[in-house]
Amino acid sequence: MRGLSGFPITPTDPDGDPVPGAVAPLIRRMADAGLDSAGVLGSTGGYAYLTETQRRDVLTEALDAAGDRIPVIAGIGALRADMAARLARHAADSGAAGLLLAPMSYAPLFEDEVFDLFARVADASDLPICIYNNPSTTHFTFSTALLARLATIPTVTAVKMPLLGDASEVAALRAAMPEGFLIGYSADWGCPAALLAGADTWYSVAGGMWPAQTLELARAAQAGDRARVAELDRRFEPIWDLFRRFGGFRTCHAASGPMGLTPSRPPAPLRPLPDDAMASLLAAIEALQD
Amino acid sequence: MRGLSGFPITPTDPDGDPVPGAVAPLIRRMADAGLDSAGVLGSTGGYAYLTETQRRDVLTEALDAAGDRIPVIAGIGALRADMAARLARHAADSGAAGLLLAPMSYAPLFEDEVFDLFARVADASDLPICIYNNPSTTHFTFSTALLARLATIPTVTAVKMPLLGDASEVAALRAAMPEGFLIGYSADWGCPAALLAGADTWYSVAGGMWPAQTLELARAAQAGDRARVAELDRRFEPIWDLFRRFGGFRTCHAASGPMGLTPSRPPAPLRPLPDDAMASLLAAIEALQD
Repeated sequence: MRGLSGFPITPTDPDGDPVPGAVAPLIRRMADAGLDSAGVLGSTGGYAYLTETQRRDVLTEALDAAGDRIPVIAGIGALRADMAARLARHAADSGAAGLLLAPMSYAPLFEDEVFDLFARVADASDLPICIYNNPSTTHFTFSTALLARLATIPTVTAVKMPLLGDASEVAALRAAMPEGFLIGYSADWGCPAALLAGADTWYSVAGGMWPAQTLELARAAQAGDRARVAELDRRFEPIWDLFRRFGGFRTCHAASGPMGLTPSRPPAPLRPLPDDAMASLLAAIEALQD
Repeated sequence: MRGLSGFPITPTDPDGDPVPGAVAPLIRRMADAGLDSAGVLGSTGGYAYLTETQRRDVLTEALDAAGDRIPVIAGIGALRADMAARLARHAADSGAAGLLLAPMSYAPLFEDEVFDLFARVADASDLPICIYNNPSTTHFTFSTALLARLATIPTVTAVKMPLLGDASEVAALRAAMPEGFLIGYSADWGCPAALLAGADTWYSVAGGMWPAQTLELARAAQAGDRARVAELDRRFEPIWDLFRRFGGFRTCHAASGPMGLTPSRPPAPLRPLPDDAMASLLAAIEALQD
């Protein structure tokens, strides 16, 4: 849970069900590029839209493809704590390296309830747990006090934050958390700045689709090479623009076919990209290959 | 979808799974009290936390208990459109009188996607569809323009709105919608005012738990008897207070045991009411019986 973690889509058929065998090549591309880890069944991996059985099958396929080449972090968030705990046990038994736990919600959750969720999942396995802080999808906002309280659970060792606000946020969060606690960011367009500001991890949607190019940007940021970061980031800007407008989930599904991967679309009622955005995406993909 | 529609909990065991046979008595109580309809598997009915099979079983049980005594509206919202459409077909085949469709979301939805969802569900059956507008759980906010566009689908005939803001909202919404389109409200503490302001329907959590008392309040509001409404509403105020603080979902689960119904608790990680709130609830229940 340090460095660059790539979060691929789970390619799905027109009904929204996973295409067997289609996750494995995405994992292998990340291993080939040398990413630090692969995050399976995150928001971009569509965990929320799959049944428990489908989630187990996708994870097993990803772990088989990863072998010893790249550690796999498994997204195990669920509306019900019992399901999250079962998925945690399955991930541990299957060889995952860590867990990503989102406090998915329908009825809005109280802080104590979110603490219960993490405690229950922590009881279910010995794997390290990354707190998935993503208010735009889970509709739960972590206070810094709750993050610090969760970090008292021995296996809760990392956080995946949403879009970086001000760069000073990283140091403030670090000061509030125990020593060695890993601070990472998502929302790709803010992540080079987060790494430059001292974050430990970039949890990256782009890393799941364009692993080599994203790794180059991540390594420049980890090295503190601001000029190189600015240069590489400019090449990603058309992708970031699509991510901001349509989300990484819709955008990466739309990119899969043109990239020569298993053609995929997000589960209905989510729509593929509109035609004009698709044209922008094709141009953005082209520009990244240069 | 006119008058008072009561939305009961689905009693669940400590694992969060429905207790077989426990919904039927709740439906019978509403029929005995003379409610205009029963809403099964709404937010309070915990639809979001149940599997597709559990949802079919709960609805079938409710329809058997209702017989010809009370029409049943079935909540069929789901993250995936294919599941919502399958549930709509099942509800129609099983004898439900109408459908309640929430645009449940994980990735935030665009308006066109929500339109697609309603069109797909409308294609799946001939039942009337009520638009479930509940941003605090679905995280989608309907514009008035989208409501009007959805009302062009012939079987989309009603809306269930969230908490009434200003009373003038009802007339403004009525003016924007086709003639005969039914305008209803939820968030119980605002609903007597909504009926007084001319709304057609009160979709009521309290109606699922205290059907006779809620009906008395609804009928006073429908008759425009403001003095009587104020008097009856005062008796409900301790309940409304708990609903505002803990939600109807947690509160009604907590009430089920003390009311002599199947003891129930919301699915973890949701917690039952804390002890001091439980004491308030017992007093509030007592006061309603007077």
